Amino acid sequence: MNTDGKQAVFEAGIKLGALYHQWVGTPVSRDSAPGIEHAIEQAVILQPFVEEITVRLDRSLMTENLYGYSELSGLMFQVEIITRVGFAYCRAQLAPDAGYPLMRIVECHEIFGVSHH
Amino acid sequence: MNTDGKQAVFEAGIKLGALYHQWVGTPVSRDSAPGIEHAIEQAVILQPFVEEITVRLDRSLMTENLYGYSELSGLMFQVEIITRVGFAYCRAQLAPDAGYPLMRIVECHEIFGVSHH
Amino acid sequence: MNTDGKQAVFEAGIKLGALYHQWVGTPVSRDSAPGIEHAIEQAVILQPFVEEITVRLDRSLMTENLYGYSELSGLMFQVEIITRVGFAYCRAQLAPDAGYPLMRIVECHEIFGVSHH
Amino acid sequence: MNTDGKQAVFEAGIKLGALYHQWVGTPVSRDSAPGIEHAIEQAVILQPFVEEITVRLDRSLMTENLYGYSELSGLMFQVEIITRVGFAYCRAQLAPDAGYPLMRIVECHEIFGVSHH
Repeated sequence: MNTDGKQAVFEAGIKLGALYHQWVGTPVSRDSAPGIEHAIEQAVILQPFVEEITVRLDRSLMTENLYGYSELSGLMFQVEIITRVGFAYCRAQLAPDAGYPLMRIVECHEIFGVSHH
Repeated sequence: MNTDGKQAVFEAGIKLGALYHQWVGTPVSRDSAPGIEHAIEQAVILQPFVEEITVRLDRSLMTENLYGYSELSGLMFQVEIITRVGFAYCRAQLAPDAGYPLMRIVECHEIFGVSHH
Repeated sequence: MNTDGKQAVFEAGIKLGALYHQWVGTPVSRDSAPGIEHAIEQAVILQPFVEEITVRLDRSLMTENLYGYSELSGLMFQVEIITRVGFAYCRAQLAPDAGYPLMRIVECHEIFGVSHH
Repeated sequence: MNTDGKQAVFEAGIKLGALYHQWVGTPVSRDSAPGIEHAIEQAVILQPFVEEITVRLDRSLMTENLYGYSELSGLMFQVEIITRVGFAYCRAQLAPDAGYPLMRIVECHEIFGVSHH
Protein backbone atom coordinates (compact mmCIF):
# COMPACT_ATOMS: atom_id res chain seq x y z
CA MET A 1 0.00 0.00 0.00
CA ASN A 2 1.50 3.29 -1.08
CA THR A 3 1.29 6.71 0.53
CA ASP A 4 -2.02 7.62 -1.13
CA GLY A 5 -3.53 4.31 -0.11
CA LYS A 6 -2.58 4.84 3.52
CA GLN A 7 -3.93 8.34 3.52
CA ALA A 8 -7.27 7.22 2.03
CA VAL A 9 -7.62 4.79 4.96
CA PHE A 10 -6.56 7.48 7.45
CA GLU A 11 -9.07 9.99 6.07
CA ALA A 12 -11.90 7.44 6.29
CA GLY A 13 -11.06 6.96 9.98
CA ILE A 14 -10.93 10.71 10.62
CA LYS A 15 -14.32 11.35 9.05
CA LEU A 16 -16.06 8.49 10.91
CA GLY A 17 -14.51 9.42 14.26
CA ALA A 18 -15.42 13.06 13.75
CA LEU A 19 -19.03 12.55 12.75
CA TYR A 20 -19.64 10.18 15.64
CA HIS A 21 -18.60 12.69 18.28
CA GLN A 22 -20.04 15.70 16.49
CA TRP A 23 -23.55 14.28 16.31
CA VAL A 24 -24.02 11.84 19.17
CA GLY A 25 -26.44 13.32 21.72
CA THR A 26 -28.48 15.34 19.20
CA PRO A 27 -32.20 15.23 19.96
CA VAL A 28 -33.88 13.14 17.27
CA SER A 29 -37.23 11.51 16.48
CA ARG A 30 -38.51 9.34 13.66
CA ASP A 31 -39.97 12.42 12.00
CA SER A 32 -36.83 14.51 12.23
CA ALA A 33 -34.41 11.68 11.35
CA PRO A 34 -34.37 12.36 7.58
CA GLY A 35 -33.36 15.99 8.11
CA ILE A 36 -30.60 14.98 10.52
CA GLU A 37 -29.30 12.28 8.16
CA HIS A 38 -29.19 14.82 5.35
CA ALA A 39 -27.42 17.43 7.50
CA ILE A 40 -24.74 14.91 8.54
CA GLU A 41 -24.18 13.91 4.91
CA GLN A 42 -23.93 17.55 3.87
CA ALA A 43 -21.42 18.30 6.62
CA VAL A 44 -19.22 15.29 5.84
CA ILE A 45 -19.19 15.70 2.05
CA LEU A 46 -17.70 19.19 2.46
CA GLN A 47 -14.53 17.77 3.91
CA PRO A 48 -11.47 16.95 1.83
CA PHE A 49 -11.05 13.47 0.31
CA VAL A 50 -14.69 12.43 0.79
CA GLU A 51 -16.15 10.92 -2.40
CA GLU A 52 -19.40 9.53 -1.03
CA ILE A 53 -21.22 9.36 2.27
CA THR A 54 -24.52 7.78 3.19
CA VAL A 55 -26.01 8.08 6.66
CA ARG A 56 -28.98 6.09 7.88
CA LEU A 57 -30.19 6.33 11.49
CA ASP A 58 -31.92 3.27 12.91
CA ARG A 59 -35.50 4.36 13.71
CA SER A 60 -36.14 1.19 15.70
CA LEU A 61 -33.82 2.48 18.44
CA MET A 62 -35.57 5.85 18.68
CA THR A 63 -37.60 5.01 21.73
CA GLU A 64 -39.18 8.07 23.22
CA ASN A 65 -38.19 9.33 26.65
CA LEU A 66 -40.61 10.95 29.11
CA TYR A 67 -40.73 14.00 26.90
CA GLY A 68 -41.43 12.27 23.62
CA TYR A 69 -38.06 12.31 21.89
CA SER A 70 -34.76 10.43 21.93
CA GLU A 71 -31.11 11.31 21.53
CA LEU A 72 -28.88 10.12 18.73
CA SER A 73 -26.86 7.24 20.20
CA GLY A 74 -23.85 5.44 18.77
CA LEU A 75 -25.81 2.30 17.92
CA MET A 76 -28.24 4.23 15.71
CA PHE A 77 -25.55 5.03 13.14
CA GLN A 78 -25.41 3.12 9.87
CA VAL A 79 -22.84 5.00 7.86
CA GLU A 80 -20.84 4.18 4.74
CA ILE A 81 -18.11 6.44 3.43
CA ILE A 82 -15.78 6.34 0.44
CA THR A 83 -12.60 8.40 0.57
CA ARG A 84 -10.17 9.01 -2.27
CA VAL A 85 -6.57 10.25 -2.28
CA GLY A 86 -5.05 10.37 -5.75
CA PHE A 87 -6.05 7.04 -7.29
CA ALA A 88 -6.48 5.21 -3.99
CA TYR A 89 -9.92 4.56 -2.59
CA CYS A 90 -11.14 3.34 0.81
CA ARG A 91 -14.66 2.23 1.68
CA ALA A 92 -15.44 2.06 5.41
CA GLN A 93 -18.47 1.71 7.67
CA LEU A 94 -19.83 2.62 11.05
CA ALA A 95 -22.51 0.16 12.12
CA PRO A 96 -23.54 -1.84 15.19
CA ASP A 97 -21.56 -5.03 15.78
CA ALA A 98 -22.25 -7.14 18.87
CA GLY A 99 -23.74 -4.14 20.66
CA TYR A 100 -20.84 -1.83 19.87
CA PRO A 101 -20.83 0.97 17.26
CA LEU A 102 -17.99 -0.50 15.19
CA MET A 103 -15.97 1.36 12.59
CA ARG A 104 -14.31 -0.90 10.04
CA ILE A 105 -12.59 -0.85 6.67
CA VAL A 106 -14.66 -2.64 4.02
CA GLU A 107 -12.22 -2.52 1.12
CA CYS A 108 -9.37 -0.53 -0.34
CA HIS A 109 -8.44 -0.13 -3.99
CA GLU A 110 -5.70 1.55 -5.89
CA ILE A 111 -6.18 2.19 -9.58
CA PHE A 112 -2.92 2.00 -11.45
CA GLY A 113 -2.37 4.04 -14.58
CA VAL A 114 -1.93 2.54 -18.04
CA SER A 115 1.61 2.84 -19.33
CA HIS A 116 2.04 4.54 -22.69
CA HIS A 117 4.81 3.81 -25.17
CA MET B 1 -41.98 35.96 38.91
CA ASN B 2 -43.62 32.68 39.85
CA THR B 3 -42.28 29.15 39.53
CA ASP B 4 -43.42 28.70 35.93
CA GLY B 5 -41.88 32.02 34.94
CA LYS B 6 -38.53 31.05 36.41
CA GLN B 7 -38.61 27.69 34.70
CA ALA B 8 -39.41 29.25 31.32
CA VAL B 9 -36.28 31.39 31.67
CA PHE B 10 -34.24 28.38 32.84
CA GLU B 11 -35.40 26.26 29.89
CA ALA B 12 -34.48 29.00 27.41
CA GLY B 13 -30.96 29.03 28.87
CA ILE B 14 -30.68 25.23 28.72
CA LYS B 15 -31.70 25.07 25.06
CA LEU B 16 -29.35 27.84 23.93
CA GLY B 17 -26.39 26.45 25.89
CA ALA B 18 -27.06 22.97 24.53
CA LEU B 19 -27.42 23.89 20.89
CA TYR B 20 -24.27 26.01 20.98
CA HIS B 21 -22.06 23.15 22.16
CA GLN B 22 -23.86 20.49 20.14
CA TRP B 23 -23.31 22.22 16.81
CA VAL B 24 -20.21 24.39 17.07
CA GLY B 25 -17.45 22.88 14.93
CA THR B 26 -19.75 21.31 12.32
CA PRO B 27 -18.37 21.67 8.78
CA VAL B 28 -20.57 24.14 6.92
CA SER B 29 -20.64 26.14 3.68
CA ARG B 30 -23.01 28.71 2.21
CA ASP B 31 -24.67 25.94 0.20
CA SER B 32 -25.15 23.57 3.12
CA ALA B 33 -26.16 26.25 5.64
CA PRO B 34 -29.94 25.98 5.02
CA GLY B 35 -29.88 22.23 5.72
CA ILE B 36 -27.89 22.74 8.93
CA GLU B 37 -30.19 25.53 10.10
CA HIS B 38 -33.18 23.30 9.51
CA ALA B 39 -31.60 20.34 11.31
CA ILE B 40 -30.80 22.49 14.36
CA GLU B 41 -34.36 23.81 14.45
CA GLN B 42 -35.74 20.27 14.16
CA ALA B 43 -33.53 19.04 17.00
CA VAL B 44 -34.39 21.91 19.34
CA ILE B 45 -38.15 21.92 18.73
CA LEU B 46 -38.30 18.28 19.89
CA GLN B 47 -37.27 19.25 23.38
CA PRO B 48 -39.75 19.99 26.15
CA PHE B 49 -41.00 23.56 26.68
CA VAL B 50 -39.85 24.86 23.29
CA GLU B 51 -42.61 26.83 21.52
CA GLU B 52 -40.61 28.35 18.68
CA ILE B 53 -37.04 28.33 17.44
CA THR B 54 -35.47 30.09 14.49
CA VAL B 55 -31.84 29.56 13.54
CA ARG B 56 -29.99 31.69 11.03
CA LEU B 57 -26.26 31.18 10.37
CA ASP B 58 -24.31 34.22 9.20
CA ARG B 59 -23.03 33.37 5.68
CA SER B 60 -20.68 36.35 5.70
CA LEU B 61 -18.49 34.59 8.27
CA MET B 62 -18.27 31.37 6.24
CA THR B 63 -14.86 32.09 4.82
CA GLU B 64 -13.40 29.04 3.16
CA ASN B 65 -10.31 27.36 4.53
CA LEU B 66 -7.64 25.71 2.37
CA TYR B 67 -10.07 22.92 1.59
CA GLY B 68 -13.02 25.05 0.58
CA TYR B 69 -15.28 24.87 3.63
CA SER B 70 -15.60 26.43 7.07
CA GLU B 71 -16.68 25.28 10.51
CA LEU B 72 -19.69 26.55 12.39
CA SER B 73 -18.34 29.07 14.90
CA GLY B 74 -20.08 30.74 17.81
CA LEU B 75 -20.32 34.12 16.09
CA MET B 76 -22.26 32.64 13.15
CA PHE B 77 -25.30 31.87 15.32
CA GLN B 78 -28.36 34.10 15.15
CA VAL B 79 -30.92 32.21 17.16
CA GLU B 80 -34.22 33.18 18.72
CA ILE B 81 -36.17 30.83 20.97
CA ILE B 82 -39.48 31.04 22.80
CA THR B 83 -40.06 28.69 25.72
CA ARG B 84 -43.31 28.19 27.61
CA VAL B 85 -44.02 26.63 31.00
CA GLY B 86 -47.68 26.73 31.96
CA PHE B 87 -48.76 30.27 31.07
CA ALA B 88 -45.28 31.78 31.35
CA TYR B 89 -43.26 32.60 28.24
CA CYS B 90 -39.63 33.56 27.73
CA ARG B 91 -38.11 34.89 24.52
CA ALA B 92 -34.30 34.73 24.35
CA GLN B 93 -31.55 35.12 21.77
CA LEU B 94 -28.08 33.98 20.87
CA ALA B 95 -26.37 36.55 18.65
CA PRO B 96 -23.01 38.29 18.32
CA ASP B 97 -22.49 41.23 20.68
CA ALA B 98 -19.15 43.06 20.70
CA GLY B 99 -17.40 40.05 19.21
CA TYR B 100 -18.87 37.57 21.70
CA PRO B 101 -21.69 35.08 21.01
CA LEU B 102 -24.04 36.48 23.63
CA MET B 103 -27.09 34.72 25.02
CA ARG B 104 -29.67 37.08 26.49
CA ILE B 105 -33.27 37.24 27.64
CA VAL B 106 -35.37 39.47 25.38
CA GLU B 107 -38.64 39.43 27.30
CA CYS B 108 -40.72 37.35 29.67
CA HIS B 109 -44.49 37.25 29.97
CA GLU B 110 -46.96 35.53 32.18
CA ILE B 111 -50.55 35.32 31.09
CA PHE B 112 -52.88 35.40 34.05
CA GLY B 113 -56.21 33.67 33.87
CA VAL B 114 -59.53 35.44 34.10
CA SER B 115 -61.36 34.65 37.31
CA HIS B 116 -64.90 33.40 37.00
CA HIS B 117 -67.61 33.87 39.62
CA MET C 1 -37.97 38.65 40.46
CA ASN C 2 -35.90 41.49 39.05
CA THR C 3 -33.63 41.54 36.01
CA ASP C 4 -30.60 40.17 37.85
CA GLY C 5 -32.65 37.36 39.32
CA LYS C 6 -33.92 36.31 35.91
CA GLN C 7 -30.48 36.41 34.43
CA ALA C 8 -29.04 34.26 37.25
CA VAL C 9 -31.65 31.61 36.40
CA PHE C 10 -30.95 31.97 32.67
CA GLU C 11 -27.20 31.58 33.19
CA ALA C 12 -27.68 28.43 35.27
CA GLY C 13 -29.67 26.95 32.39
CA ILE C 14 -27.05 27.92 29.83
CA LYS C 15 -24.22 26.34 31.76
CA LEU C 16 -26.04 23.06 32.42
CA GLY C 17 -27.22 22.75 28.82
CA ALA C 18 -23.75 23.52 27.53
CA LEU C 19 -21.85 21.10 29.74
CA TYR C 20 -24.26 18.29 28.95
CA HIS C 21 -23.72 18.49 25.19
CA GLN C 22 -20.03 19.33 25.42
CA TRP C 23 -19.15 16.23 27.43
CA VAL C 24 -21.70 13.53 26.68
CA GLY C 25 -20.03 10.76 24.65
CA THR C 26 -16.56 11.20 26.18
CA PRO C 27 -14.84 7.86 26.82
CA VAL C 28 -14.66 7.34 30.57
CA SER C 29 -13.86 4.64 33.12
CA ARG C 30 -13.96 4.46 36.90
CA ASP C 31 -10.24 5.23 36.98
CA SER C 32 -10.42 8.23 34.69
CA ALA C 33 -13.66 9.64 36.15
CA PRO C 34 -11.97 11.95 38.70
CA GLY C 35 -9.88 13.62 36.00
CA ILE C 36 -12.93 14.14 33.79
CA GLU C 37 -14.98 15.53 36.68
CA HIS C 38 -12.19 17.97 37.47
CA ALA C 39 -11.82 19.03 33.82
CA ILE C 40 -15.56 19.72 33.53
CA GLU C 41 -15.49 21.78 36.72
CA GLN C 42 -12.49 23.74 35.48
CA ALA C 43 -14.17 24.45 32.14
CA VAL C 44 -17.44 25.58 33.69
CA ILE C 45 -15.96 27.78 36.43
CA LEU C 46 -14.20 29.86 33.76
CA GLN C 47 -17.49 31.07 32.38
CA PRO C 48 -19.14 34.31 33.47
CA PHE C 49 -21.58 34.30 36.41
CA VAL C 50 -20.55 30.88 37.75
CA GLU C 51 -19.92 30.99 41.51
CA GLU C 52 -19.64 27.27 42.24
CA ILE C 53 -19.82 24.02 40.32
CA THR C 54 -19.52 20.45 41.49
CA VAL C 55 -19.56 17.51 39.09
CA ARG C 56 -19.89 13.91 40.15
CA LEU C 57 -20.16 11.10 37.60
CA ASP C 58 -22.02 7.98 38.68
CA ARG C 59 -19.48 5.13 38.61
CA SER C 60 -22.20 2.50 38.96
CA LEU C 61 -23.35 3.26 35.39
CA MET C 62 -19.84 2.87 33.95
CA THR C 63 -20.37 -0.62 32.64
CA GLU C 64 -17.60 -1.65 30.33
CA ASN C 65 -18.24 -2.32 26.67
CA LEU C 66 -16.42 -5.01 24.63
CA TYR C 67 -13.29 -2.90 24.76
CA GLY C 68 -13.25 -2.24 28.47
CA TYR C 69 -14.51 1.33 28.73
CA SER C 70 -17.76 3.24 28.67
CA GLU C 71 -18.97 6.59 27.34
CA LEU C 72 -20.22 9.43 29.47
CA SER C 73 -24.02 9.27 29.25
CA GLY C 74 -26.61 11.78 30.38
CA LEU C 75 -27.70 9.69 33.36
CA MET C 76 -24.18 9.65 34.83
CA PHE C 77 -24.22 13.38 35.53
CA GLN C 78 -24.76 14.62 39.08
CA VAL C 79 -24.06 18.31 38.82
CA GLU C 80 -24.83 21.27 41.06
CA ILE C 81 -24.16 24.84 40.00
CA ILE C 82 -24.56 28.22 41.66
CA THR C 83 -24.75 31.30 39.44
CA ARG C 84 -24.72 34.92 40.56
CA VAL C 85 -25.70 38.11 38.77
CA GLY C 86 -25.37 41.21 40.93
CA PHE C 87 -26.90 40.16 44.24
CA ALA C 88 -29.13 37.46 42.78
CA TYR C 89 -28.20 33.80 43.13
CA CYS C 90 -29.54 30.65 41.52
CA ARG C 91 -28.76 27.08 42.55
CA ALA C 92 -29.63 24.41 39.99
CA GLN C 93 -28.96 20.73 39.37
CA LEU C 94 -28.57 18.15 36.66
CA ALA C 95 -29.34 14.67 38.00
CA PRO C 96 -31.30 11.56 37.01
CA ASP C 97 -35.03 11.72 37.66
CA ALA C 98 -37.27 8.83 36.61
CA GLY C 99 -34.69 7.69 34.06
CA TYR C 100 -34.25 11.12 32.50
CA PRO C 101 -31.26 13.47 33.03
CA LEU C 102 -33.29 16.31 34.54
CA MET C 103 -32.13 19.89 34.93
CA ARG C 104 -34.02 21.83 37.60
CA ILE C 105 -33.85 24.99 39.67
CA VAL C 106 -33.26 24.22 43.35
CA GLU C 107 -33.58 27.71 44.79
CA CYS C 108 -33.15 31.37 43.95
CA HIS C 109 -32.19 34.19 46.29
CA GLU C 110 -31.77 37.88 46.02
CA ILE C 111 -29.84 39.68 48.71
CA PHE C 112 -31.10 43.18 49.24
CA GLY C 113 -28.74 45.87 50.43
CA VAL C 114 -28.92 47.52 53.81
CA SER C 115 -29.86 51.17 53.54
CA HIS C 116 -27.54 53.62 55.21
CA HIS C 117 -28.62 56.96 56.63
CA MET D 1 0.63 -3.15 3.93
CA ASN D 2 -1.34 -5.98 5.46
CA THR D 3 -4.71 -5.93 7.20
CA ASP D 4 -3.28 -5.04 10.60
CA GLY D 5 -1.25 -2.23 9.09
CA LYS D 6 -4.29 -0.72 7.42
CA GLN D 7 -6.32 -0.97 10.59
CA ALA D 8 -3.61 0.74 12.65
CA VAL D 9 -3.78 3.69 10.22
CA PHE D 10 -7.60 3.65 10.30
CA GLU D 11 -7.67 3.65 14.11
CA ALA D 12 -5.27 6.60 14.27
CA GLY D 13 -7.63 8.54 12.01
CA ILE D 14 -10.68 7.61 14.09
CA LYS D 15 -9.10 8.73 17.34
CA LEU D 16 -7.87 12.08 15.99
CA GLY D 17 -11.19 12.85 14.29
CA ALA D 18 -13.10 11.92 17.43
CA LEU D 19 -11.04 13.92 19.88
CA TYR D 20 -11.16 17.00 17.68
CA HIS D 21 -14.95 17.14 17.60
CA GLN D 22 -15.40 15.96 21.19
CA TRP D 23 -13.31 18.76 22.66
CA VAL D 24 -13.39 21.74 20.33
CA GLY D 25 -15.42 24.54 21.93
CA THR D 26 -14.55 23.64 25.54
CA PRO D 27 -13.92 26.73 27.68
CA VAL D 28 -10.21 26.85 28.49
CA SER D 29 -7.60 29.20 29.95
CA ARG D 30 -3.85 29.00 30.45
CA ASP D 31 -4.46 27.91 34.04
CA SER D 32 -6.93 25.18 33.19
CA ALA D 33 -5.10 23.91 30.10
CA PRO D 34 -3.06 21.21 31.94
CA GLY D 35 -6.21 19.65 33.39
CA ILE D 36 -7.92 19.64 29.99
CA GLU D 37 -4.86 18.14 28.30
CA HIS D 38 -4.77 15.41 30.90
CA ALA D 39 -8.50 14.68 30.60
CA ILE D 40 -8.22 14.36 26.80
CA GLU D 41 -5.27 11.98 27.16
CA GLN D 42 -7.16 9.90 29.71
CA ALA D 43 -10.22 9.68 27.48
CA VAL D 44 -8.27 8.69 24.37
CA ILE D 45 -6.02 6.12 26.03
CA LEU D 46 -9.11 4.17 27.15
CA GLN D 47 -10.03 3.39 23.57
CA PRO D 48 -8.97 0.23 21.78
CA PHE D 49 -5.67 0.14 19.84
CA VAL D 50 -4.23 3.29 21.43
CA GLU D 51 -0.64 2.77 22.63
CA GLU D 52 0.35 6.34 23.38
CA ILE D 53 -1.24 9.77 23.24
CA THR D 54 0.18 13.18 24.08
CA VAL D 55 -1.91 16.33 23.96
CA ARG D 56 -0.50 19.83 24.19
CA LEU D 57 -2.73 22.88 23.80
CA ASP D 58 -1.08 26.03 22.45
CA ARG D 59 -1.34 28.64 25.24
CA SER D 60 -0.30 31.44 22.87
CA LEU D 61 -3.68 31.16 21.12
CA MET D 62 -5.65 31.37 24.37
CA THR D 63 -6.53 35.02 24.03
CA GLU D 64 -9.16 36.05 26.50
CA ASN D 65 -12.59 37.14 25.36
CA LEU D 66 -14.65 39.85 27.10
CA TYR D 67 -15.23 37.47 29.99
CA GLY D 68 -11.65 36.43 30.55
CA TYR D 69 -11.49 32.99 28.97
CA SER D 70 -11.19 31.37 25.56
CA GLU D 71 -12.59 28.31 23.84
CA LEU D 72 -10.55 25.38 22.63
CA SER D 73 -10.13 25.90 18.89
CA GLY D 74 -8.78 23.52 16.26
CA LEU D 75 -5.50 25.35 15.86
CA MET D 76 -4.64 24.96 19.56
CA PHE D 77 -4.28 21.20 19.24
CA GLN D 78 -0.80 19.65 19.15
CA VAL D 79 -1.50 15.96 19.42
CA GLU D 80 0.56 12.86 18.72
CA ILE D 81 -0.90 9.38 18.84
CA ILE D 82 0.50 5.88 18.36
CA THR D 83 -1.93 3.09 17.51
CA ARG D 84 -1.15 -0.62 17.34
CA VAL D 85 -3.02 -3.53 15.78
CA GLY D 86 -1.24 -6.84 16.12
CA PHE D 87 2.37 -6.01 15.23
CA ALA D 88 1.55 -2.98 13.11
CA TYR D 89 2.06 0.52 14.44
CA CYS D 90 0.99 3.93 13.20
CA ARG D 91 2.18 7.28 14.49
CA ALA D 92 0.04 10.28 13.50
CA GLN D 93 -0.35 13.93 14.44
CA LEU D 94 -2.86 16.73 14.66
CA ALA D 95 -1.11 20.09 14.47
CA PRO D 96 -1.49 23.45 12.72
CA ASP D 97 -0.24 23.55 9.13
CA ALA D 98 -0.65 26.72 7.07
CA GLY D 99 -3.49 27.89 9.32
CA TYR D 100 -5.38 24.60 9.15
CA PRO D 101 -5.57 21.97 11.93
CA LEU D 102 -4.00 19.18 9.87
CA MET D 103 -4.12 15.49 10.71
CA ARG D 104 -1.34 13.48 9.11
CA ILE D 105 0.38 10.10 9.26
CA VAL D 106 3.96 10.44 10.49
CA GLU D 107 5.12 6.85 10.03
CA CYS D 108 3.90 3.28 9.96
CA HIS D 109 5.79 0.16 10.98
CA GLU D 110 5.12 -3.51 10.96
CA ILE D 111 7.24 -5.79 13.08
CA PHE D 112 7.61 -9.20 11.51
CA GLY D 113 8.01 -12.24 13.68
CA VAL D 114 11.07 -14.49 13.71
CA SER D 115 10.35 -17.91 12.27
CA HIS D 116 11.19 -20.86 14.43
CA HIS D 117 12.09 -24.33 13.14
